Parts: sequence; structure tokens; C-alpha cells
Amino acid sequence: MPGGYVDKILKVNLTTKNVTTEAIKEDVAKKYLGGKGYAVYLLYQYLKEYERRGLSPQNIDPLGKENILIFATGPGTGVPRFPSSGRHHIMALKAPLTGSIGSGNAGGEWGAFLKFAGFDGIVIEGASDTPVYLALVDGKAEIRDAGELWGKNTMDTTRALTSLVGGKNTSVVCIGPAGENLIPMATVMNDEYRAAGRGGLAAIMGSKRLKAIVVSGDQKVPVAKPEEFRSVADRCLDTMKKNPVTGEGLPTYGTAILVNVINNAGAFPYKNWQSGVMPDADSISGETLTKDYLIRKRACWGCTIECGRISSVKSGPFQILTAEGPEYETIWSLGSACGISDFGAIVKAHQVCNELGLEPISLGSTIAAAMELNEKGYIPAEDLQGWALGFGNAAVIVDAPWRTTYKVGFGKYLALGSKKLCELYGHPELSMTVKGLEMPAYDPRGIKGMGLAYATANRGGCHLTGYTVAPEILGIPEKIDPLITEGKAQWVKAFQDFVSVVNSTVNCQFTTFALGAKDYAELLSAVTGWELSEDEIFKIGERIYNLERVIMNRLGVDGKDDTLPSRLLKEPMPEGPVKGHVVDLEKMKEEYYKLRGWVNGTPTPEKLKELEIEL
Amino acid sequence: MPGGYVDKILKVNLTTKNVTTEAIKEDVAKKYLGGKGYAVYLLYQYLKEYERRGLSPQNIDPLGKENILIFATGPGTGVPRFPSSGRHHIMALKAPLTGSIGSGNAGGEWGAFLKFAGFDGIVIEGASDTPVYLALVDGKAEIRDAGELWGKNTMDTTRALTSLVGGKNTSVVCIGPAGENLIPMATVMNDEYRAAGRGGLAAIMGSKRLKAIVVSGDQKVPVAKPEEFRSVADRCLDTMKKNPVTGEGLPTYGTAILVNVINNAGAFPYKNWQSGVMPDADSISGETLTKDYLIRKRACWGCTIECGRISSVKSGPFQILTAEGPEYETIWSLGSACGISDFGAIVKAHQVCNELGLEPISLGSTIAAAMELNEKGYIPAEDLQGWALGFGNAAVIVDAPWRTTYKVGFGKYLALGSKKLCELYGHPELSMTVKGLEMPAYDPRGIKGMGLAYATANRGGCHLTGYTVAPEILGIPEKIDPLITEGKAQWVKAFQDFVSVVNSTVNCQFTTFALGAKDYAELLSAVTGWELSEDEIFKIGERIYNLERVIMNRLGVDGKDDTLPSRLLKEPMPEGPVKGHVVDLEKMKEEYYKLRGWVNGTPTPEKLKELEIEL
Repeated sequence: MPGGYVDKILKVNLTTKNVTTEAIKEDVAKKYLGGKGYAVYLLYQYLKEYERRGLSPQNIDPLGKENILIFATGPGTGVPRFPSSGRHHIMALKAPLTGSIGSGNAGGEWGAFLKFAGFDGIVIEGASDTPVYLALVDGKAEIRDAGELWGKNTMDTTRALTSLVGGKNTSVVCIGPAGENLIPMATVMNDEYRAAGRGGLAAIMGSKRLKAIVVSGDQKVPVAKPEEFRSVADRCLDTMKKNPVTGEGLPTYGTAILVNVINNAGAFPYKNWQSGVMPDADSISGETLTKDYLIRKRACWGCTIECGRISSVKSGPFQILTAEGPEYETIWSLGSACGISDFGAIVKAHQVCNELGLEPISLGSTIAAAMELNEKGYIPAEDLQGWALGFGNAAVIVDAPWRTTYKVGFGKYLALGSKKLCELYGHPELSMTVKGLEMPAYDPRGIKGMGLAYATANRGGCHLTGYTVAPEILGIPEKIDPLITEGKAQWVKAFQDFVSVVNSTVNCQFTTFALGAKDYAELLSAVTGWELSEDEIFKIGERIYNLERVIMNRLGVDGKDDTLPSRLLKEPMPEGPVKGHVVDLEKMKEEYYKLRGWVNGTPTPEKLKELEIEL
Repeated sequence: MPGGYVDKILKVNLTTKNVTTEAIKEDVAKKYLGGKGYAVYLLYQYLKEYERRGLSPQNIDPLGKENILIFATGPGTGVPRFPSSGRHHIMALKAPLTGSIGSGNAGGEWGAFLKFAGFDGIVIEGASDTPVYLALVDGKAEIRDAGELWGKNTMDTTRALTSLVGGKNTSVVCIGPAGENLIPMATVMNDEYRAAGRGGLAAIMGSKRLKAIVVSGDQKVPVAKPEEFRSVADRCLDTMKKNPVTGEGLPTYGTAILVNVINNAGAFPYKNWQSGVMPDADSISGETLTKDYLIRKRACWGCTIECGRISSVKSGPFQILTAEGPEYETIWSLGSACGISDFGAIVKAHQVCNELGLEPISLGSTIAAAMELNEKGYIPAEDLQGWALGFGNAAVIVDAPWRTTYKVGFGKYLALGSKKLCELYGHPELSMTVKGLEMPAYDPRGIKGMGLAYATANRGGCHLTGYTVAPEILGIPEKIDPLITEGKAQWVKAFQDFVSVVNSTVNCQFTTFALGAKDYAELLSAVTGWELSEDEIFKIGERIYNLERVIMNRLGVDGKDDTLPSRLLKEPMPEGPVKGHVVDLEKMKEEYYKLRGWVNGTPTPEKLKELEIEL
């Protein structure tokens, strides 16, 4: 890398079984950094090539051979002492759940170990007729038969391949039965418990019959200016340690620390977003998790935050010896969204989701929508086959991951995802989705910036790309009023651009509670050997976000899709501290588009030129 | 039928797609009656043919093309007013779970409707390459594509085919995903909730890619002497109505009436048969079911007993709107055997078993064995993947049907069945099985006759063929001491022979609480036009039981297999009313073989000659 920055991307065509490597040269690297940036850049090249061959982007089948799946790391990934850098980013031209761009990011070890195996990224083209897995060991890549692994859960798959390959720094990314069965909310799992890819990226692997990618090796990850890097990294790690969120809140309580915080703010969606206050939220809070269920913490590779939880349910009807998490989002989606406060049931259901490779935000939200449909009398009794689909029935969430993965009974409807489910039953307004993706656990009627963030997130209802919860609720980097709309556009844009850099670095977004663009500029300068300023960091992020939006536009998504479910726009919050509030989206959107240089959700030619994006 | 008794058997070869009918003439009918008798007779013909072609019976793969599956009705089935005659019998040369003869019997409507469709039985040969179902409508038979049905649960399959075929008296027998996935404890379901076939007969259908058989029609079932029949039938129905079991106990409480009865007798196996007393049995009793869960009763076709239950769980963590049963055996296997007293969890787990087509006695017993293996430290922690496999954990039984059907995580071990599971973990003595089939809910240390019945039952650990619980516990037809061994052989033999007739009639065994061989002789004489005496009834039953045993012998099963798990022979019951008791099997077996005219579990040539069995 020092002395001519070149990244090595593995290209695997599963139809032809052709395996090649391709270099990403310094000019592209400087513009797109790595990770998500590379993925967006490469996806756009495929899109252009498809258009050249006469294949309209809108006609690409998410589960067809034309879809492209990319796994990518960045310059920070796997670098010792680079803060929280054991991550990888996954993208696809089309996510099965939404029909537009797919994007996800996961922790664990796999991202770092992919680099130790000698690769910076992987592009998957085509589709295999029979189940295969990829083995990337010490710089070599092989497509191998996965017939014996097909049908196995993510743990058996991970353990089997880890044991088979042996060696140093061995890690597995794989799909479970949900991905094999092409469920549009199947998620790609790695290291047994980490998940990337909302919108069904695992179903793409399923459609390509790619069960897993195992990586192993001990190649060194280059750092251009080691001494400079060490000094910057040490300072950043120290800053993180002293920060109340990354140094105390997350390590002590995990992400579940947010349950009481967001519920107290009146923005913890309850019973399919009918309210923002869960009466018995404390029974599923981070404090309760820590007190009654936590066995120990678990950190991703190279991470000092250690927000991962290993839990156990020791009594009651849902005992389980060890389980990962649950994370805030899962606690909410399988809990509050469904009116369920039985923590044991949530842990149990979540663990089964991990086994089967099913994404809990979308699953829980879809169940919640089905519960409301049913309680309002919109689901014929015969469709339920005796299943008691009502808010608060723990049996539903414990049953649903299985039922959905194998499309059994009502599971065949849940497997549609919330949007199509609600359309099927004639009430699309009850689907709490943006661009077909289920929204996470923050009601924007109480955190207005999140309304704009959800509406304008490229991949759909996503809390990660524009996490204004930080300033609006947590006061990071400064406290702003969550209930006003003025000025939120600027925050959303800044977060979206900055997070694009983080996802291209690739390291953990939680670092941004403590580190700013200046820190990233210094870290990345030292690693790459370039001289990156804070402004350039934001410009790279903006470039990536805009090129991603260009792809979205080509797929048919524009300003009309930058919206929210009508419940958030028209139904005033019925109770709690933000009672009476709705989201005034249009006002924020207007401000946002102006800041972005977009018209109706589409970047203008001037903006693209300014960002040096070549179409 | 009157004036030359001929039964019409449909022969379907799924390899060649050849469909023919074959007559069973009066000479065979008089010797084997119908139902199980026909099936045993036909299976023996196949066995002889295989031997002639040089295929050793012991080399027949239960899931291979050579295995033969037979569905059969008898002269009583579908005859209006013939007591409880909406049943059918299923047999196979080899059950996947046991490797020896497979046999099962179910209520509902399908048996009667098969006759209304114009057929007395169906023989399935060969195997299809692609999923198919059979449609038998108004005397015509067709093999049709079942691609769309594959993967669906038993309810969706039943409803889809019922709706597709329409017409009068339409009924479906089918397999769920468990059968498709070749799980050796998959059971054949009919009419959504009725099950036949322990030992994995549904896996045979799965191996033959036969998803379902739908029947429909309104052909009349002939009665040779209608007036005589009406008079006899009316008298029998009246007797049943006045009988305390068939007229009151079963209608009021269902089969679950037995929970408290058998627990009070100290013979209700608890925690994998470590005890015969469940401390909190009343929470899962028939009385509790009736008081807290029962919605309504459901009768099979033409049945006046109405022992079926429709239940609902209205509160707690396992709510369910409507569920069938649960029956006594299920309550025990998923409950007491696993140390679980949460009735809601049992109802929920049982309903999922019905959906997936999984047999709850074998499943629950296998879970119970796994729980004991685990509590004794014989299962490595890594095999459990965090699953809390301990007695009393309700989550296990709710999870297990799914996990086992799709072989996910520890489910791949449960799917082996108790015998192979315990062998795998090096402790075969913990498997409570006979001939590889899990024993049902009566501990013979407290009901000695059942010890002999289990040991000598042809299909393996079966309570139905020699139900000495009737005299030993219920005092029907007379009360005998359950704790002595003397004289039990005679009871067991009599039951086995009589029940063979009932299963060949084919109607419900529960009628025998009220009706004796004399009643059956009169009913069958009136229906067939023959003059059958009480002695002939027993002789027909003995013939069928002996020919079934001949087949077993050819499959390699003999006296060495007529035994019980060592726990019942050597471990004295630790507590309760039968504390200190074991089963003195050898004494009963000696007496039994003598009565049977068997040597080492094998009928002598003299006995076969006496019974007019031609080898």
C-alpha cells in the first residue's frame, strides 16, 4: 500500500466458476476510500455495463444471476490499534426485500481476517447450480462444494468450515436456512453471531447457491506511516475510553442502554408504532439485561468498546444457556413493537434468528404489522390456522423465525416482509417501512431528525446512515432540540456523509460517538500515506452517498420514495412526552435537498461534477 | 360385496406411474378380513416375491423404492352405524425408525371417504422422481403433480387439495415437512389433525415423493344383511353409550382422563422414566384440560364417543386460538416425560407437531432421553449451541418440533430418534424403546401386563396392540391385579388377537371398552354375510398377528428383541404406590410364547398350519 496504493479485489463468477483478482488503483482509492465506497463504485460500473448491454437496471431480478454482491473492507480494517476495525461492508445492486440497493455492515472478525487472507474485497457474479462455498486461504481462492452444508444453521456451518480449514485467523461468513430459502429478510451472518445486510442480502447468496465464505491467513495489513499512525491511534483510543458512551455506556450496558433512554423520550415505538411509550419497558432494558441475563461481554476484533453481550435465561418458560445480545434493535423489534415484555422470549427468538440467519428488525416489524392487521380484523381466521397473532403473545415471536424461514402456515405471509404483507391484506398504511425496509426503533415524531434520516436513507428505513439520535437525544457532539425541524437537514446530511466514510474505512460507527472527521482524517492519512483534511473526509463521504443515490435513481427510486408511513406524518403521537407530535417531513426535505444539491431526490449534474463523479 | 365378497385394492407404482386395481377375493377376505389383515397378507406376498428375486428382506431400505406402503379399510369402515368406523390402517414393510414392520391407525374421515371414493385399499410401490399426489375421485385414480404442495404444512396441504378437488366427502391424507425431510418420526396426517403411523411412515411417503392422497365420492358401502346389521349395530351403540368409558369418561374428558388415573397408579413415566409419579400431574390432567382449555369436542366420522378435543390457550406465554387435543399420549410425552407441566407449552408444541407431521410420542420421548443424557453430562456443550436442554424447560418442546423437522442445531441429533441418539452418546440404556420404537405412557413396573405387551408388540414399544391397562387399571372387562405377573400372558395374547381384528375391521379400538368379540362377530357377520363365531374372530386375529410376526422374523426380529429397556427390568421404581417394583419379563414371556405356540419369538410350523397360514 505505501508507495502506490493498490487494493486487491477478488472477482468470483459462480456461473463460469472463473476466479480472478482485480486491482483498485490509487486514483479510485483516493476518491472512494474502500468498503462501501468501493462497493458503490463497482456496482455503478456493473450498472453501466448492464445498460450498455441493453439490460434495464429496473429489470434486474434481485434473485437472478445479474445481481451483484460485494464484500468489502477498507484501509482501516484489520489494522492493529485502528479503532474498532474488525468489520466488513456488504452491498448488492438490488436487495430482495426492497428491490433497490442493498447495504449492510457487520462486526466480528471476518472483515479483518479477510485482509489477513490477502484480499481487500470480493465481488460475486453469476450463480452456481449447486451449493458451493468460497475458501480464501493465504492469498488463494477456491470455489468448493457445499452440498453437505446446505440446510445447516449458521453455527454448524461456521464451526464446520472453521474446523475444516484450520489455520490462523479463520473466520466464516455464511447464510442459514433463511437465506437458502430466499426469504427477503434473511441476513448474512459471520462469526456465528454477527449480522450484516438488511433487506435480504443472504437471499442473494441463497439464489447464487453460495453458502459461505471462509477466510484464513496471516498476511500483514500495511500502514504507510507507522509511527504517526501509532500516535494518532493511541490518542483516539484514549478519547474513546474517556467518552461516556464508548467508554462507559456501551461497555457497561451494551446497545440496550437505549431502551429506557428512548422510551423516556417518548420515542420507543410500541405495538407497531401505535404509541411511543412502552409501559413496561424497564423489563427489557439494558439495565435489566445487565442485572438478570448478562453472562459476559464480547468484543469484535480490535475493539476497545466491547458492546457485545452474551446472555443466559436461567428461569421461566424460555430458558437458554447462552445467547448473543440481544441488541437494542432486536429487543425493540421482537419486544416493544410486538407488545412483548418477556425478555426470555426475546432472547430465545433472537437466538433462533441468528441460527437461521434471519434479520430481527424486519422480522419483528413484520410480525407487529401482522398483529395490528389481525387485531383490526383484516386477516381471515383461516389464514391463521389457530395461531394467536395478538400483541403480547410471546409464543408468536418464538415460533415466527421458524415459521417464516420455512414458510409454514402463516409464515408464508410473514416471509413477504411488512410492506407486501400489508398490501396483501389491503392496508399498506399499516406497514411501517420506508422504501420497503422496516424502520428501526426510533419514532421520529419524538426525534424529528430521524424522520428525515429514514426518509432519505438510500437503502430504506435505516437508522444508521443518519443517526441524529446522537445530538437530538444523547447530546453528542452537542445537544439539540429533538422536537424542532429547523436545522435538522444539515445534521442528517453531515451524518450520512460521515457515516459513508466510516463504512468505507471500514470500522465501527460507534467510534463516532467519540471521534470526529478530524480524527478520521488523521487516522486515514497515517494509514494510507495521503494527506486527508477534514473537508476531504466529508467530500469523500458526500461522493459515496451521491453515487449510491445515482444508482438508486437508475433503479427507479427518487424523491417520491423519500417519504414516511402516513402514521408518522398524520397521526399525532397519542401519549407520553411527545404527545400530539407528527413529523413535518416536507419542510425538512426541502432544506435537505437544497443542501444536497438534489432535485426531487436526484443529484443535479452540477453536484455530480462538483463531486467528480463520472457517469 | 353380498353374493361374492370382493374388495378393490388400488395398486400405484410411482416409479412407472402405472395404476391398476386388484381384487381381493372371498377366500382371502375370510381369512384376513380387511385393513391390517389385508395389509399383512399383501406385505407378505411382496416379501415372498422379493425373496424369489433374490432380494433379502433385511437388505430392503425403508426409504428405498422396494419398500411398500399400504393404506387399508375393512368391512366395517364407512358403514353407517357401524360403531366408530371412520378409520383406516397404514402399514409398511419397513418403518424408517425401527427397520422392521410399520403399522398405524387413524381416525377422522379419510378411511370412510376412501370407501366412498370407490376403493377398499391402496398399495404404493416404487418412488416418484418429483413430488406427486394421488387423487381418487368417484372410482377413478390419478397421479398428479404436487410441486406446489411440497414444503407446505399439513393444514395448507389438506385445505388446498380439499378445495381443488371439491365434491362430496372429500378428505386428504398427507405428509408435512417432517415426512418430506425423511425424519424417522414423521407421521402421516389426515383431516388436518388425525395421525397414523408411528415409526416414520410419513418418511416413506417422503422418500416416494408422495405428498398426499385426496379421496372423494359418494359410493355406497355394501351391507350383506341390512336388517340384521341395524339391529346388532343399534344394540352395540346402546351398549357403548351406557358404558362408563365410552359413554362418559372419554366423551367428557377425552383420552387425557388417564393422566390422573395412571399417575395415581404410580405408572405415569416422569423425566424419561426415572419415576412413575409426576408431582404436578394435575396441571396437565384431563380435568384441567376440560376446565381451562377445552373449546369443544370433535368426533371422527360415524363415531358416538366424540373423544376428540379442540382446545385454546387464552393466557400466558403460549397462547393459541385453536388446537387439536392434546391426547393423553402427547400430554405425557411432551409433558411428564420431559418434566414439563406447562399445559400451554404442550398444546403449542403439539399443534406444531401436527402442522409439520411429526409424531409426538417418539419426539417427546427422544427429547426426554436427550434431557437425561444432558443432565448426566453425556452431551458435549458444543453440540447444544446454547440450547438449555434440561427437564422442565418449556422452550425445548416448543422449539424441538421445528428444530427436528429441519435438522437444525441439536435437532439433527433429535431427528435420529431415541435409540440412535442414546447410542450416539454412548448410553443406549437411557433409550426407553422397544425394537427401536419409543414406549408410550404406561410404566410396566406398575402395570405388569404392559411390560409383556410392549416387549412382544410386533411394531415395537406400542400400547395399543396389547392394552392390558383396561383390566389392570380400569377393571375392563374385569379388574385384575396390575402388580402380579401370573396370567398376564393370556390377557396380552387375547388383546393382541382381538385388536388385530379391530384394526382389520377397520374401526376404533376404543369400542372394545364396551364391545367384545361376540359383538364384533355379530356386526361383521351382518356386514359380510358370513357366519362368524366369537372363536373365529379370535382365530382371524391370531392369524393376522402371527403372519405379521412371520414377516418380522424374516426382517431379522425374534425373541431377542422381545424385551424391555434395562431400567424397567432392573431399576426398582423409586417412589409412589409401586415403589420397589421391576418387571419380571422372562416369566411372562415364557408363559406367552407357550400360549402363542412360538419358540424364541418365532411361530412354529405347527402353529402356522393350525392357523392356515401358507408360507
